[in-house]
Amino acid sequence: MVKITALDTYDVRFPTSRELDGSDAMNPDPDYSAAYVVLRTDDARHLAGHGFVFTIGRGNDVQKAALDALRPFVLGLTLDQVIGDLGGFANRLIGDSQLRWLGPEKGVMHMAIGALINAAWDLAARHAGKPLWRFIAELSPQQIVNVIDFRYLTDVLTPEQALALLRAAEPGKQERIGQLLAEGYPAYTTSPGWLGYSDEKMQRLAREAVADGFRTIKLKVGLNLDDDVRRCRLARATVGPDIHIAVDANQRWDVPQAIAWLHRLADANLAWIEEPTSPDDILAHATIRRAVAPTPVSTGEHTHNRVMFKQLFQAGAVDLVQIDAARVGGVNENLAILLLAAKFGVRVFPHAGGVGLCELVQHLAMADFIAISGKKEDRAIEFVDHLHEHFVHPVTIRHGRYIAPDAAGFSAQMHDRSIAEYSYPDGPAWHESADALRA
Amino acid sequence: MVKITALDTYDVRFPTSRELDGSDAMNPDPDYSAAYVVLRTDDARHLAGHGFVFTIGRGNDVQKAALDALRPFVLGLTLDQVIGDLGGFANRLIGDSQLRWLGPEKGVMHMAIGALINAAWDLAARHAGKPLWRFIAELSPQQIVNVIDFRYLTDVLTPEQALALLRAAEPGKQERIGQLLAEGYPAYTTSPGWLGYSDEKMQRLAREAVADGFRTIKLKVGLNLDDDVRRCRLARATVGPDIHIAVDANQRWDVPQAIAWLHRLADANLAWIEEPTSPDDILAHATIRRAVAPTPVSTGEHTHNRVMFKQLFQAGAVDLVQIDAARVGGVNENLAILLLAAKFGVRVFPHAGGVGLCELVQHLAMADFIAISGKKEDRAIEFVDHLHEHFVHPVTIRHGRYIAPDAAGFSAQMHDRSIAEYSYPDGPAWHESADALRA
Repeated sequence: MVKITALDTYDVRFPTSRELDGSDAMNPDPDYSAAYVVLRTDDARHLAGHGFVFTIGRGNDVQKAALDALRPFVLGLTLDQVIGDLGGFANRLIGDSQLRWLGPEKGVMHMAIGALINAAWDLAARHAGKPLWRFIAELSPQQIVNVIDFRYLTDVLTPEQALALLRAAEPGKQERIGQLLAEGYPAYTTSPGWLGYSDEKMQRLAREAVADGFRTIKLKVGLNLDDDVRRCRLARATVGPDIHIAVDANQRWDVPQAIAWLHRLADANLAWIEEPTSPDDILAHATIRRAVAPTPVSTGEHTHNRVMFKQLFQAGAVDLVQIDAARVGGVNENLAILLLAAKFGVRVFPHAGGVGLCELVQHLAMADFIAISGKKEDRAIEFVDHLHEHFVHPVTIRHGRYIAPDAAGFSAQMHDRSIAEYSYPDGPAWHESADALRA
Repeated sequence: MVKITALDTYDVRFPTSRELDGSDAMNPDPDYSAAYVVLRTDDARHLAGHGFVFTIGRGNDVQKAALDALRPFVLGLTLDQVIGDLGGFANRLIGDSQLRWLGPEKGVMHMAIGALINAAWDLAARHAGKPLWRFIAELSPQQIVNVIDFRYLTDVLTPEQALALLRAAEPGKQERIGQLLAEGYPAYTTSPGWLGYSDEKMQRLAREAVADGFRTIKLKVGLNLDDDVRRCRLARATVGPDIHIAVDANQRWDVPQAIAWLHRLADANLAWIEEPTSPDDILAHATIRRAVAPTPVSTGEHTHNRVMFKQLFQAGAVDLVQIDAARVGGVNENLAILLLAAKFGVRVFPHAGGVGLCELVQHLAMADFIAISGKKEDRAIEFVDHLHEHFVHPVTIRHGRYIAPDAAGFSAQMHDRSIAEYSYPDGPAWHESADALRA
């Protein structure tokens, strides 16, 4: 009988702040990082599950401590106790009464639990020999319902309603798998739009993005209104009328400021405004959306759990949402969120970039297309082209589209050499950094 | 020039689960704990500031790790850089872009930052030689406004509006200080109502509470409906018609279940129903409130920041709220919440119990009475009679009222011997526990 023999954790940080990649109005100098977890087994094939929390530097050690606190929950379990009941496994972690006090279901502890749950799904998909998107897509509607925690959702989505929704998506599954394999899934790119970039660099990267096949680009905004007006105009002049331009304020504004700012950007014909204000402020998003219509309003990468997504939908606060593979309670909670979005007919544009977020979230979007919403051409997964080289199965982008991964698992595994090189504070990458500073 | 020389942290846990004190529908076996922080200085009088995060056991080590992560933010600061600008000090911690990713403003990292901010207020009040309630009450309206972060609040409360509200409370301050010193502040007690207690124990403790002068008692509910109906009836028969009975479901229900359950308790004439569902679910509280009126609906002890409180008020989701001294971003954020409550005319019944929560939150309620709302007799601070002996300045309760503390500071300091005895996992209290289990 195969058992879980270890939960190993790593504090891995990349010194991205040196280049201002990833700079936006709230995050001027991120060091993209991962609190990384490996669930090891005594399986003869060295079967293991990989997962991580994405952070932007300081505090990655706190996330690692939170992962370490989960060790007693998994050591000694049989493989079947983990992957044979992925719903029960998640519920025992999320429902632990003492850990729950630290949230509930939000922040450091919830993200750590989410990473461990994702590692369990990686393990399950590897054990099944399937990429995670296919592993999920080939579960039955009842199996999907069984992994979801419907607590606090039943005023808008009961297990029975979820089952009906999933069953309605059953016809055409095989056809959609064929479409996905042939066509890939639309991507959009944020690479041109970081706030730290000059106008020239932004325009050059925007031209390259269009040439590469992307149909949507995203610019960071929110630091200086005149700059934003100019950059949106330049971007429009660069990409022409047929390419979508989204903007992202990264929570920069209060309600009155958001409305005034967006009125100045009204003629930019924006695809959406992302994170105009606090991710906690459902009512503010609803107010802003009414005031700036028809500009679509969006949030979600910091939305901390399914209860918050439920309310965004109930309040009519958003036209579309981001989901994030490493913020909420793992695959299970993201499936609940995708079901809620499908029920409300809200499009999902998954958040990616960072470290490995592209690798993870593509599986959720693809599973959604096959088994839940049945849609992909009216939405797109974010793509940022950095740090993919550290992953054993990096994403493949062709002509502005994600190609469906075929390796078994969740694409979460980092190269051992990358983990060693960028371990903080003792990895060689950080020693060189310290040496350079002293020089 | 006095400097901050150390940020010391301690994982202190009390084995309360052995007695079922503190048992409720969501928390069957809490070990009341504190992730404790001391801000030390090189002041000749050994001036130090104390603060803590309250947890219920597992994960207290994660909170301690989060406190440790804050050390670089304070080591080497001058005393004046901390206590001379308590607003700037708090904003630099809460606004740190990298740490912010771990919330933002919620969960483990936000609670740790709140504990450190509280330690800074303890330091400031000790330095001024005043109990914290008086230290706050004697700040000018402008000084109070200066410590508050209005980000995400200005759609309902601007600094100017806050200033006007505080100035309106200026007349009568001295008179109210006199009243507070003479009369104390009303308390209510949860001691009779833990779910693990027998009917007889509940009735005996309820009788004792009334004899001790308490005008409100609270019962835990939510595990079994018939039990709750019986316990509410027994409690009413025990205390008579003039004592208020509140109930607390500790987030146990979904919306439809909450409404059905509360309809069965409708004839109990409840003072309020606390935490009927997820603390994140603003819209659910509004729906429940409309459905169960006139039973007052309440939440707040797990409400993670001012943005959530703002929405509870905007949505008309609550009749009253709890505040918690150790969940949000310290004194600063609680002042923002008290101002919001005053603006909306919502009564505040501070959450206490646990470890040291009574000691802390009394200061905030008393400062609110003097400087913000001007009210105390239509509200009450929770009181639970355990673990006070571990504090250097424990609360004083007389005839069901909190007596205003006169020792300088925030009453947060634990006895060194308690910290040593209950340090986890190496303190003698936990060794004995392990020994007992082995025997």
